[in-house]
Amino acid sequence: MEWIEVPEKGLTLREVRTMTNRNVNLSDDLEKSVSAILAQVKEGGDEAIRALTKKFDGVDLTDFRVSESEIEEAVKAVGPEFLAVLKEAKGNIEAFHREQVRKSWSKTFRDGVELGERFLPIQRVGVYVPGGRAAYPSTVLMDTVPAMVAGCPSVAMATPPGKDGKVNPNILAAAYVAGVKEIYKVGGAQGIGMLAYGTETVEPVFKIVGPGNAFVAMAKRLVFGTVGIDMIAGPSEVCCVADGSANPKWIAADLLSQAEHDPRAAVFLITPDKDFGLAVQKEMEKQMKELSRYEIMKSSVDQYAKAFLCKDAEQCFDIVNKIAPEHLEVELPDPKKYLPLIYNAGAIFLGKYTSEPIGDYMAGPNHTLPTSGTAAFSSPLGVYDFVKHSSVECYSEEAFRKISKKVQLFAKAEGLTAHAHAMEVRDED
Amino acid sequence: MEWIEVPEKGLTLREVRTMTNRNVNLSDDLEKSVSAILAQVKEGGDEAIRALTKKFDGVDLTDFRVSESEIEEAVKAVGPEFLAVLKEAKGNIEAFHREQVRKSWSKTFRDGVELGERFLPIQRVGVYVPGGRAAYPSTVLMDTVPAMVAGCPSVAMATPPGKDGKVNPNILAAAYVAGVKEIYKVGGAQGIGMLAYGTETVEPVFKIVGPGNAFVAMAKRLVFGTVGIDMIAGPSEVCCVADGSANPKWIAADLLSQAEHDPRAAVFLITPDKDFGLAVQKEMEKQMKELSRYEIMKSSVDQYAKAFLCKDAEQCFDIVNKIAPEHLEVELPDPKKYLPLIYNAGAIFLGKYTSEPIGDYMAGPNHTLPTSGTAAFSSPLGVYDFVKHSSVECYSEEAFRKISKKVQLFAKAEGLTAHAHAMEVRDED
Repeated sequence: MEWIEVPEKGLTLREVRTMTNRNVNLSDDLEKSVSAILAQVKEGGDEAIRALTKKFDGVDLTDFRVSESEIEEAVKAVGPEFLAVLKEAKGNIEAFHREQVRKSWSKTFRDGVELGERFLPIQRVGVYVPGGRAAYPSTVLMDTVPAMVAGCPSVAMATPPGKDGKVNPNILAAAYVAGVKEIYKVGGAQGIGMLAYGTETVEPVFKIVGPGNAFVAMAKRLVFGTVGIDMIAGPSEVCCVADGSANPKWIAADLLSQAEHDPRAAVFLITPDKDFGLAVQKEMEKQMKELSRYEIMKSSVDQYAKAFLCKDAEQCFDIVNKIAPEHLEVELPDPKKYLPLIYNAGAIFLGKYTSEPIGDYMAGPNHTLPTSGTAAFSSPLGVYDFVKHSSVECYSEEAFRKISKKVQLFAKAEGLTAHAHAMEVRDED
Repeated sequence: MEWIEVPEKGLTLREVRTMTNRNVNLSDDLEKSVSAILAQVKEGGDEAIRALTKKFDGVDLTDFRVSESEIEEAVKAVGPEFLAVLKEAKGNIEAFHREQVRKSWSKTFRDGVELGERFLPIQRVGVYVPGGRAAYPSTVLMDTVPAMVAGCPSVAMATPPGKDGKVNPNILAAAYVAGVKEIYKVGGAQGIGMLAYGTETVEPVFKIVGPGNAFVAMAKRLVFGTVGIDMIAGPSEVCCVADGSANPKWIAADLLSQAEHDPRAAVFLITPDKDFGLAVQKEMEKQMKELSRYEIMKSSVDQYAKAFLCKDAEQCFDIVNKIAPEHLEVELPDPKKYLPLIYNAGAIFLGKYTSEPIGDYMAGPNHTLPTSGTAAFSSPLGVYDFVKHSSVECYSEEAFRKISKKVQLFAKAEGLTAHAHAMEVRDED
């Protein structure tokens, strides 16, 4: 863990960005390969999907849709205990996300002028779920439950098959609990292409959400515009603001829980207390050795862990705002009082018992969060990502007569005479 | 105008997309040029901005920030009548957009579990405003008033200088009315680069909104991730559903008001009444010749205007939903009753006096709308584009003890033992 002693006057945004940057430039080669895969899917449809699945996943699938009996088998395979936990998590996610539902509205603003907004779910959405080591049933719940709460009438999922041509049972069980029934064993860029363009047997979707490897991320970037996308997720990160009142053992465990995600994950400790920080560092080194994903944590911590030593709480949160972390733990006495100092963070965990993994699984708020500083301008995944609205405008004849000349003046100032003319023809008649 | 007789069974999404497609593939060459400009700005800062402005705009600017006296001059130059219209428009936009403000909230969901969302304005945003023929003061209001309503503490505008080194006075007057004071005479990809990366004298922003030419659109696409962006706007389009009860002269005028924007603008007439449609077509041909932007309208109508002849209202709106138009006029008797049939549209204009240009200027809802079918998954620009939120989570000790084992079970199912360990250390102590 690298130590940074923050100077009296603080650090600038640019300095903090340089210190915490993990942006990996996406290569031109990757773009070319992914473009070629997408073009093949667009042209070749189902046949291309089969060929690409054989090539990349090593399995020959005639039917790439997951059958009902495969889902039933998976539900049995995971067992009742895990199924109960999945259901409890789903219930908590649903309860929280219900608060995000917005209602259509309409209002008279001026005489004869009725304006409003009509909210509707996106009519068909796609969810990508990674396979292999990063096949997380929690992400299935986090990415599909908001779509269900939004009322999306059609949700399709794409996820890569294993060598045996099957999908990880945890993934299928989570989809079952969420109520998703249309699942395809198609991964990588071909999975994104299938959802974006559709094939003979798969209807295209209007928006794709969900994380994935570099191929998936590039494919989402390239289909953006044809469909909507949620975000391009970077490696995970956690930032913990704590002082001597916190337990170094607990803080170390929380930091390591992010580090185990990815060798490029980053953990930031921000503290006004150097002795405390050193105790956390010592605990991290100790605990890491006792945990199963040692190599990943070691690589993450060696490359990207930083401890910022600050003069006071204000300076701590100034650094936080410049990092704009995905996850922020505030482990100071009376943590709520620091909320007004926090401008940029994906999710904020207050107090010593709100360990970040609770939010990953059971609390209810979404765990799909803006990474790499994008919390400065974006929000957790939510119901609003599966809803769009139209504005609705209605002018009476009198209201039209009142505004017509002003619209004409404005349109003519912009040189748009046909705009003015649409008013004039109504004025004349 | 091309006529399409919709068959009894309707048209598929893919068929409608093919008929209405105007997607122009962005060239690799453009990407290379724009990447080079962005890299130059990132490296060279203010000096690069000056060099690129000299190269592309043909003016040599020492100071590229618009001065207070330039703004004052512009306000004088536009005259009191136009200034009053700008102010009225701004008031209407503000009133509508205030309805979009969301409040932070917090709630106890289960014993000892407090969850909520904290909404905050994006701390610094950039607005791009095109110059030349597409220098629209209405767009300045539409893109900045929502930022002001959101409470963004810092708003910077970039717009290209004319050959005389000055900014169009209409643009400056609109910025003045909106309350924007930080304006730079920097256009094109260099304007986007300046906002995204910052320079010695310009602080970087976190999000960039606003339309622009192909260079600007590509630059926004490339800086997406470093900053947020609103959308990649395509050419404008309007769709009008009308029957014999409407006035063909008015409908023709409305359709032409979109066609005058751009040779790639598209107008769609959807009607169950062929005679009425032919009368509209005749009126369009007649009116076009009498209007100043004939060449643009002619090109748009010849290439992209389509009339869909449908059997009934249901079929009309099925086509609408598959087009997902930016603007939709419903000019049928009792237009409100068709709202439940409309799933995809940027803005909906109801009734014969709600001519679309009213919405462009004076009604209040935003005129920055999703184009090219993206209304199927996105919404008008609004206050929510200038706000982001953090979720806030707080567990009591008791609530932690209740959930800890379930989090551990879930984490272990995903192979994330360090996540489980963060629970265990708290259970043990």
